[in-house]
Amino acid sequence: MATPSVDADRLWNAHMRMAKIGPTPEGGSNRPALSALDSAARALLREWCTPLGLALEQDALGNQFYRRAGRTPSAPAVAFGSHLDTVPTGGRFDGVFGVLAALEVMRTLHDAGITTAAPLELVNWTNEEGTRFRPAMMGSRVHAGDMTLAQALAVRDEAGTSVAEALAEHGLAGPWAPGPRGWACLLEPHIEQGPVLEQAGQDIGIVTGTVQARYFQIVVTGEPSHAGPTTMERRRDSLSAAAELILAVERIGIAGEPGGRSSTTWIDNSPNARGANSAITRLHSDVRHQHPARAASMQAELMEAVREVAARRQVRIDIDPYTTFGPVAFDPMLTDRLRTAAAARQMTTRDMVAVAGHDAVMTAAVCPSAMLFIPSVAGITHNPREYSTPAQLAQGAQVLLDTVLALAG
Amino acid sequence: MATPSVDADRLWNAHMRMAKIGPTPEGGSNRPALSALDSAARALLREWCTPLGLALEQDALGNQFYRRAGRTPSAPAVAFGSHLDTVPTGGRFDGVFGVLAALEVMRTLHDAGITTAAPLELVNWTNEEGTRFRPAMMGSRVHAGDMTLAQALAVRDEAGTSVAEALAEHGLAGPWAPGPRGWACLLEPHIEQGPVLEQAGQDIGIVTGTVQARYFQIVVTGEPSHAGPTTMERRRDSLSAAAELILAVERIGIAGEPGGRSSTTWIDNSPNARGANSAITRLHSDVRHQHPARAASMQAELMEAVREVAARRQVRIDIDPYTTFGPVAFDPMLTDRLRTAAAARQMTTRDMVAVAGHDAVMTAAVCPSAMLFIPSVAGITHNPREYSTPAQLAQGAQVLLDTVLALAG
Repeated sequence: MATPSVDADRLWNAHMRMAKIGPTPEGGSNRPALSALDSAARALLREWCTPLGLALEQDALGNQFYRRAGRTPSAPAVAFGSHLDTVPTGGRFDGVFGVLAALEVMRTLHDAGITTAAPLELVNWTNEEGTRFRPAMMGSRVHAGDMTLAQALAVRDEAGTSVAEALAEHGLAGPWAPGPRGWACLLEPHIEQGPVLEQAGQDIGIVTGTVQARYFQIVVTGEPSHAGPTTMERRRDSLSAAAELILAVERIGIAGEPGGRSSTTWIDNSPNARGANSAITRLHSDVRHQHPARAASMQAELMEAVREVAARRQVRIDIDPYTTFGPVAFDPMLTDRLRTAAAARQMTTRDMVAVAGHDAVMTAAVCPSAMLFIPSVAGITHNPREYSTPAQLAQGAQVLLDTVLALAG
Repeated sequence: MATPSVDADRLWNAHMRMAKIGPTPEGGSNRPALSALDSAARALLREWCTPLGLALEQDALGNQFYRRAGRTPSAPAVAFGSHLDTVPTGGRFDGVFGVLAALEVMRTLHDAGITTAAPLELVNWTNEEGTRFRPAMMGSRVHAGDMTLAQALAVRDEAGTSVAEALAEHGLAGPWAPGPRGWACLLEPHIEQGPVLEQAGQDIGIVTGTVQARYFQIVVTGEPSHAGPTTMERRRDSLSAAAELILAVERIGIAGEPGGRSSTTWIDNSPNARGANSAITRLHSDVRHQHPARAASMQAELMEAVREVAARRQVRIDIDPYTTFGPVAFDPMLTDRLRTAAAARQMTTRDMVAVAGHDAVMTAAVCPSAMLFIPSVAGITHNPREYSTPAQLAQGAQVLLDTVLALAG
């Protein structure tokens, strides 16, 4: 039986409609997790899913599962989706594409009157981005048992609102305990967030796993002094020392390419007062590499930079390598299914390693999981100018549909 | 007539008593301008001044003038003092010494039963530090006409409280309009805030004027991107570009020594979110030099660094050289009086240029003004470890007393 084709226009229009919720002046999206905007995005998703006969099950952390009945109700479900929340400077495709591609699969099956043997579930994970409530991938993390529900509910944003309060405010906490749902597998479509597919002129990225990421909290403790009279060599300025570390992290990432990356994304400076040299500066940095041994050596280079700067500037630098994550390998049977489905539609593919965290990286611990990437124009991501073409979105949704049908029978 | 001697113990004890108001865990002082702690410090000063028969006049910005009657009531008053507010990481001597040395002069004259020809005024300026309410030297600035009273009253701190509200909360606004009071002169004793006097083994710094200071607001506009997947060369990370500028400012200051300094003291980063490379980073920097031409060339070097970093990193950098201040020359007759008074007591002196802003720098525009410095141990300033010895404090107060008597007759 030939599988039906997804509707590229309908898929594109769904993205543009969703982007009207939380638009930014620059044309991007800003929908913080569990905000009124996230709640509005979920309401729109429900409006779309209800006519398709999908039944919503929602767990106590607000993870959403829209279930489509199968001919064999007891068969393990095939699940697919991503997330609707965005970073503050987000685009219209990151995460959203995974959910709306899943919706397009459901719509196409509905229009074609196809019922699969196994049930299907469209998934919308809570708080993948982790910018309002840390850590990232919170919904899938709790689902996978990497964090308890109680821990997640107690997390507070900068305004002091807890996850539990935000869930209650918008009525997003369901009765189910987060945890494995006996799925056959989980598939997550996503934009690439990098330029590789576009530069290589390829259609679909088959994600074989993720890099190893190492995260650091750094605290530079200098000494307060007066910005005017204190002679330069007597200063123990924490901000200048931190500036050296920011550049050291950057150099380590450049040397670690193409398989590696690094970033310093967060800074907090004290007293941060005009007229006073800085006493305490805090940084959040990371290094990542597809080869764990190389990630470890990048960390060693950072530690050496910390020692050198601390000694030369006579400041104290504490570095806490508080989390190492990955590498995670996705399920080879699933990645092979994705590769086969793309090839059958004459799409070109490329095996890739994901550099960022994704919900599927979490679920890989509790059920067979895999991801597919579509090209991201100019590799721009977490940015209002993030863009994939209607045809690229449709290709990704088509590969998802074909793979789902092959898996669900 | 031999002038009486100040009481070193009494002066030291006054410092230690004042330091009990707003103590920091490290042994310093934290008394933000117009806070409850500033109000408590003022109450203590009043408790000390009242038994001396000093009459408090307070202007609408909370500047305080404790007046001691002279034999010739119509003669222009000789004024002296400094400020009681501190930076958050302040020490026990900056500003406070100027007020308490003035108090010690009043106490010594009172004990000796001396009435001068000219009236005397002990001055406590409002908000010299400028960390809670910008700009610094607010009280003396409005007094000197460099800012209007209305402008100052409207300034808000980070919590949104205005100067007017803070004055009202603590009942610190008096009936007098801020402005020149017909003084003969203004003398301000202060700690050096640098190591020069101590290193040279000299007792008193005769401050002949101030450096030129140039202040900059810098805005780096990069582009948001995902901290993981975005390849290093595709990033337009504003934080890394800002780090280069922080180090460039530092290098310019080192090259500008000994007459010059530079600092970057304030940073604001956006989105400042783990997982997102930075899009906008703001800095506040300054360069200072005793020779205005050299200060101008330091600014030119900074402008060149901005251009180079912007071009190489393909980010936008806007730099606003929003204020240039100084140089200011103090009154030569007054500095000569200070020099003569110190020499008469067998103290060694050194002519110096002040690198920081001070209230006397403001009043110099409206009445003859001058400053004297006492040594600051290890040059530590705006720091809990700021320290001058009881003997050093007493020497400074003695020179002040002798000079006041010479001027007031």
